[in-house]
Amino acid sequence: MTEDNRSAEVISIGTELLLGEILNTNAQFLAQELAQLGIPHYYQTVVGDNPLRIQKAVAIACERSRLLIFTGGLGPTPDDLTTETLAELFNVPLVERPEVLEDMARKFAQRGRVMVPSNRKQALLPQGAEILPNPTGSAPGMIWSPRAGLTILTFPGVPSEMKAMWRQTAVPYLMSQGWGQEIIYSRTLRFWGVAESTLAEKVAPLLQLTNPTVAPYAGNGEVRLRVSTKAPNEATALATIDPVVQQIQAIAGADCFGVDDDSLASVVGKLLMSKQQTVAVAESCTGGGLGHLLTTIAGSSIYFKGGVIAYDNQVKVNLLGVKPDTLVQQGAVSEDVACQMAVGVRDRLGTTWGLSITGIAGPDGGTETKPVGLVYIGVAESNQSAKAVRFQFGSFRGRDWVRWLSACSALDLLRRQLL
Amino acid sequence: MTEDNRSAEVISIGTELLLGEILNTNAQFLAQELAQLGIPHYYQTVVGDNPLRIQKAVAIACERSRLLIFTGGLGPTPDDLTTETLAELFNVPLVERPEVLEDMARKFAQRGRVMVPSNRKQALLPQGAEILPNPTGSAPGMIWSPRAGLTILTFPGVPSEMKAMWRQTAVPYLMSQGWGQEIIYSRTLRFWGVAESTLAEKVAPLLQLTNPTVAPYAGNGEVRLRVSTKAPNEATALATIDPVVQQIQAIAGADCFGVDDDSLASVVGKLLMSKQQTVAVAESCTGGGLGHLLTTIAGSSIYFKGGVIAYDNQVKVNLLGVKPDTLVQQGAVSEDVACQMAVGVRDRLGTTWGLSITGIAGPDGGTETKPVGLVYIGVAESNQSAKAVRFQFGSFRGRDWVRWLSACSALDLLRRQLL
Repeated sequence: MTEDNRSAEVISIGTELLLGEILNTNAQFLAQELAQLGIPHYYQTVVGDNPLRIQKAVAIACERSRLLIFTGGLGPTPDDLTTETLAELFNVPLVERPEVLEDMARKFAQRGRVMVPSNRKQALLPQGAEILPNPTGSAPGMIWSPRAGLTILTFPGVPSEMKAMWRQTAVPYLMSQGWGQEIIYSRTLRFWGVAESTLAEKVAPLLQLTNPTVAPYAGNGEVRLRVSTKAPNEATALATIDPVVQQIQAIAGADCFGVDDDSLASVVGKLLMSKQQTVAVAESCTGGGLGHLLTTIAGSSIYFKGGVIAYDNQVKVNLLGVKPDTLVQQGAVSEDVACQMAVGVRDRLGTTWGLSITGIAGPDGGTETKPVGLVYIGVAESNQSAKAVRFQFGSFRGRDWVRWLSACSALDLLRRQLL
Repeated sequence: MTEDNRSAEVISIGTELLLGEILNTNAQFLAQELAQLGIPHYYQTVVGDNPLRIQKAVAIACERSRLLIFTGGLGPTPDDLTTETLAELFNVPLVERPEVLEDMARKFAQRGRVMVPSNRKQALLPQGAEILPNPTGSAPGMIWSPRAGLTILTFPGVPSEMKAMWRQTAVPYLMSQGWGQEIIYSRTLRFWGVAESTLAEKVAPLLQLTNPTVAPYAGNGEVRLRVSTKAPNEATALATIDPVVQQIQAIAGADCFGVDDDSLASVVGKLLMSKQQTVAVAESCTGGGLGHLLTTIAGSSIYFKGGVIAYDNQVKVNLLGVKPDTLVQQGAVSEDVACQMAVGVRDRLGTTWGLSITGIAGPDGGTETKPVGLVYIGVAESNQSAKAVRFQFGSFRGRDWVRWLSACSALDLLRRQLL
């Protein structure tokens, strides 16, 4: 097996990685992106904030890879050494870029902060290197070819900044340079309220396909089916992918809530807007998590009016009109209280829908009859009596997990009502 | 800077890592363990299931590290190549180990499964290698010194198996061989409301220390300083670390909100409990995110009563008593509305504190005078007039970022009030 002379290598720089303080999610993201672009990728290296060892690692990488992708070490502090170490290795002087300084000054001003001298070094790039703009952070990266047949890309270690820079600048640049001829296209179908194994059995024959391929993933309570094919262009790809996507949607029905970037919150939002309806929330154990999820969507103010965080029982009574007797007789975590919360918030905020959550997130507060993980989700539509659904999320995955599943399941319940 | 001649290197083998299909959590686990043992660890390498490239990577690692820790490639399938590739590289024959075969047969029987021929290869180890038992899985690893001054440990890629093997066999072996005499201890100081560069300059002399070392990190709007030292035991370590921790705390003052596992929410919770006070929230642009953060803490019901998600202006008026005139004259995103929201929720829920957030999360809704990222955070204490602080988070990092900073800054504002 000979090396592909167009292969890429990911080099992650940061002592915090070698101390295990952070997980190298950047390397996984870049690996996925390189696979999508069909760019061969045979090695990944992690090295600390040490100029000598960085130079040794780069020297090795230069011998076996033609595209070196660096993350980390672009910050303002003395242990951020990536740029200067690369310049030194290739014996090229660093030059201060006024446009970078201006951009950084503007961003600091926006945050009402003052730029300190140590930030200046973030404007230094090797002579001849192109700036790789950082739209979401202060320090830019660079696109640099220090010698023929070698391309260097540098990114900050902050994942959100690195991803934005990769997609907005690095990918178009790489394509323009002839990397990634055949691209892997895919669509991801997203499911809620169905187990991975159950779904896998329903679509078993499709999981055997070779083109497109259909691969199941599960995580965060959601199940996904990724339908992929390699093609020279999107039209060809979609002609292969879409028929299979439609087959899966037909089989899965309402369990499939969306595709690709859809989320439960965005799908619920689209359904409410199409019907010109509104929703309000009443939350106990989620403490505002459901409202927070609904408002992740820009423009959600069209259909989301607000709600009441009724963490304390007195708030359930005073602000939502839950009957004290019901709290005493049924307990706060009960079908009746969930229904009264949903109706109460719907009527007080004058929305089409009221959506409520009351449960035991744990780790304490569970009983024989009402264990940790028991959650009631209520939904009330105008001029109709409310109903509540009982969920048992279990305790073994902890408080955050119960709260997350509760908020998502509430969105899913409303989604199915709206269908 | 010379290499430590007792340094370790982690080599992760698996094409699935290069495709980004899995996250390399094994490397983080081993990094943490090596740091704890005080075993220097300067490089990590990831390479695919390819004998030639595995050999190249190992040849490089042998030159710079004395302890090579492999994960992955021990399975029964043809693409599991770690053991045979290492044997070939060092030109040592593989020998079938009957005790391994018996152990595997026993485990298969226990699970009512039949051992297939392909499992036999998992019993092959290089001549002279010790078996590294795998209590929770089928394939064992090995402890092998193919030449003087070089030790090789191999583990399966399955994290649970690798971890069990590491703790039960590898660590005792390494200690017995004189590795890890001194352990690295550290404390992490956590800061909010100060830029990394500003803090770094305030504590600049301390960043130059060699024992303990002080290293800054930034992420999610928070800044951290990690104070670390190598010591034979915790008492010795803390004697070195604590004076520096106290110096930093003295320099940083209220900007330092906690240590190690403290969070803004947990610190606010402790302060409220110590004063037997309570808080309620009134949220506009965060849509419940502040309440959700407060209730991440188990037992928060002692001091958090609930709140109102006043996303729509009518809700601000009806449920919080915000004056319609103020909304018209000042606009929803204004100092006065933030104050009225804080007072309104405090009085309606009968809490000691009312905390409010109103702002423009974007991406739309910004104006010349009120740009995206402008947020007012209000705080009201019982029997006192409210005050509001103006924040300018900018638009360049997006809606989620503005909402996250808003919720955290509200907690930080309350924290500083409680101090």
